[in-house]
Amino acid sequence: MSAALDTRTPQHLTVVGMPVHDLPTPCLVVDLDALNRNVQRMAAYCARHKVRLRPHAKTHKSADIGRVQMQAGAVGVCVQKVSEAEALVDVGASKLLITNEVIAPLKLMRVAELAQCVAGRNGQLGIVVDSLQGIDALGAAMALVHASIDVYVEINVGQNRCGVPPGEAAVPLAQAIGQHANMRFAGLQAYNGKLQHARTVAARRQAVADVAVQIQATRDALHAAGLPVPLVTGGGTGAFAIEIASGQYDEIQAGSYVFMDAEYMDNERDPSQPEFENSLFVLTQVMSVSADHVVCDAGHKSHAIDAGLPRVWTAEDETPLVFANGGDEHGILRAAQPGEALPALGSLIWLIPGHCDPTVNLHRRLYGVRGGLRHGRVDHVIRVDARGCVQ
Amino acid sequence: MSAALDTRTPQHLTVVGMPVHDLPTPCLVVDLDALNRNVQRMAAYCARHKVRLRPHAKTHKSADIGRVQMQAGAVGVCVQKVSEAEALVDVGASKLLITNEVIAPLKLMRVAELAQCVAGRNGQLGIVVDSLQGIDALGAAMALVHASIDVYVEINVGQNRCGVPPGEAAVPLAQAIGQHANMRFAGLQAYNGKLQHARTVAARRQAVADVAVQIQATRDALHAAGLPVPLVTGGGTGAFAIEIASGQYDEIQAGSYVFMDAEYMDNERDPSQPEFENSLFVLTQVMSVSADHVVCDAGHKSHAIDAGLPRVWTAEDETPLVFANGGDEHGILRAAQPGEALPALGSLIWLIPGHCDPTVNLHRRLYGVRGGLRHGRVDHVIRVDARGCVQ
Repeated sequence: MSAALDTRTPQHLTVVGMPVHDLPTPCLVVDLDALNRNVQRMAAYCARHKVRLRPHAKTHKSADIGRVQMQAGAVGVCVQKVSEAEALVDVGASKLLITNEVIAPLKLMRVAELAQCVAGRNGQLGIVVDSLQGIDALGAAMALVHASIDVYVEINVGQNRCGVPPGEAAVPLAQAIGQHANMRFAGLQAYNGKLQHARTVAARRQAVADVAVQIQATRDALHAAGLPVPLVTGGGTGAFAIEIASGQYDEIQAGSYVFMDAEYMDNERDPSQPEFENSLFVLTQVMSVSADHVVCDAGHKSHAIDAGLPRVWTAEDETPLVFANGGDEHGILRAAQPGEALPALGSLIWLIPGHCDPTVNLHRRLYGVRGGLRHGRVDHVIRVDARGCVQ
Repeated sequence: MSAALDTRTPQHLTVVGMPVHDLPTPCLVVDLDALNRNVQRMAAYCARHKVRLRPHAKTHKSADIGRVQMQAGAVGVCVQKVSEAEALVDVGASKLLITNEVIAPLKLMRVAELAQCVAGRNGQLGIVVDSLQGIDALGAAMALVHASIDVYVEINVGQNRCGVPPGEAAVPLAQAIGQHANMRFAGLQAYNGKLQHARTVAARRQAVADVAVQIQATRDALHAAGLPVPLVTGGGTGAFAIEIASGQYDEIQAGSYVFMDAEYMDNERDPSQPEFENSLFVLTQVMSVSADHVVCDAGHKSHAIDAGLPRVWTAEDETPLVFANGGDEHGILRAAQPGEALPALGSLIWLIPGHCDPTVNLHRRLYGVRGGLRHGRVDHVIRVDARGCVQ
């Protein structure tokens, strides 16, 4: 992290300097050195390949971490929700892209207010659309403020969720954007989340090749209509190197690389990508001991399970442990090899979450440590500014 | 809800009176009339069967709802974590049972402080233990305050998580509790969460019969050691009527009955139990439309998926819809019958969460409505006081 402590929340200062083993469990601990290495490696890779990096803040929901990413060269951050943008703007962010469609008029009023607010800080707001109705509703809100917004047309490049089909369908949307005074057609968003988790490099390469054809077809259709595409944004932690190599992306939205998680670590490693380290851990304590298992105090309310249960991180000289479902508030730990000794009552256990984004969303703060997980001390408390901002 | 508005958070008053369809999505909406009926039915059932009701607040994490439960006759509330107790005590609660083991000395200091705080309000704190080490650590903390704590020995009655084996193993723990000046052996906790979700009534009956034998064996062992059991606490929404009928329970800890959820609604209904209604819904909006599906703005960050994906609630004259996984921030909706019309862009959709407890934990507030889901208005904003309190 940067040198600056979190001065917005003085009560956090009381834990700065505390040994990790005194933290209240379960809690999220960030290895700040590993996080910094991840941030630097991604920034250097994007700079070397001459693409913009706009990391997704839905992963960390923290203005502090966004600031560190921007100090390393990011052009701004992505957010997924309007309230997430508001939470980050509240604590200083000014260059944001809402990577999601917004339809409700009351929410679009908030988008327009945000555009005006960040314009006053020499910032810029962007948003994504995939319908004429959405463009008109956004236009009605933007007409009420003195600020502009960058508008990207989302194309569906294989995720089969939001976005118009690639090709011709983007043309009337790009034209409609241009008809609103405070709106600029800023380019395309092309993101396929599923391909980020394709296990083999070969599968990711094939999927990106398919995406590239679809982006090119959309560029061609827009070009034929006299509409150049200023920028294509997208890409993720699993495949950004392949996505950059496709030549179709100007801006990468990867987010998870700052923390990594068990799901991304299960991907076959792409040797063309920089290596990222697990920097995010759930610290939990053994609070009950039985003959064949022990129970720790971390359950579904401490870590998300959409990408599976967490893995137990153990040092080389420790008994490997397996985490089993213990419900909302507990985890069951057993030895990976039957008969091996189990940790004693009160022992601290480190978990690597299955999926970092929704795990961070469960916590108010991240405890940033230096000096190693076992014997380190809290160096910095990172607020999860946009926790719970789903709207 | 009671007549009292939530005066602690004046900004909430701005949404009181707002039509439901103007709420920012996704959000949690509570049908206050249904919630009140659930609270009254459970209270009446327990009163008629002469058992105490101590509802679990891990479900709602809200002082407001706890107060309504106590007005209907509950003797206090259960909580699962120390920080959850602190959050509720901060806003007025004074009769709490921590239904979980606590081992860390720093957390036990907070338990002792809480005991002293609630004693000053004529309240009482309870806690659960399952180890001599935990009792000694609690005793060391309690020795520093001028207050008492009720201590229950947890026995493992089939959940195979925390708790000592039924029978003799409880005796040395009950004896050890009695050796600490500020600690009272208050009885046994016997909770089997798994049996609450056994799908058939017959399976739940059989499981409760097994539990009853184990409680009785523990009573017998304690009795033989000259230790009467003041109270047995446990039971849940799925099987409380059977648990009460076993004659072994003095106090019921059910929580989910206030909201219900898809998982509990999948249980075969026990005709001996009062009927509970779904009172908790995720309100979400269609924000993208494609040829074969529409996308709503509620994903894993809006509802927990440990008990499966949410169900779409539809009125009788509406097309039944199926919710599919759209990731952290989206849901995919398709018609249950292929070819049926899909909802239009901007439509509002109501979801019944798979599991209420961890879903509530994702939100800052619940919007309490009266006048029906479709055309009602916000009557009361319920703060989720203990949101994220996992420690």
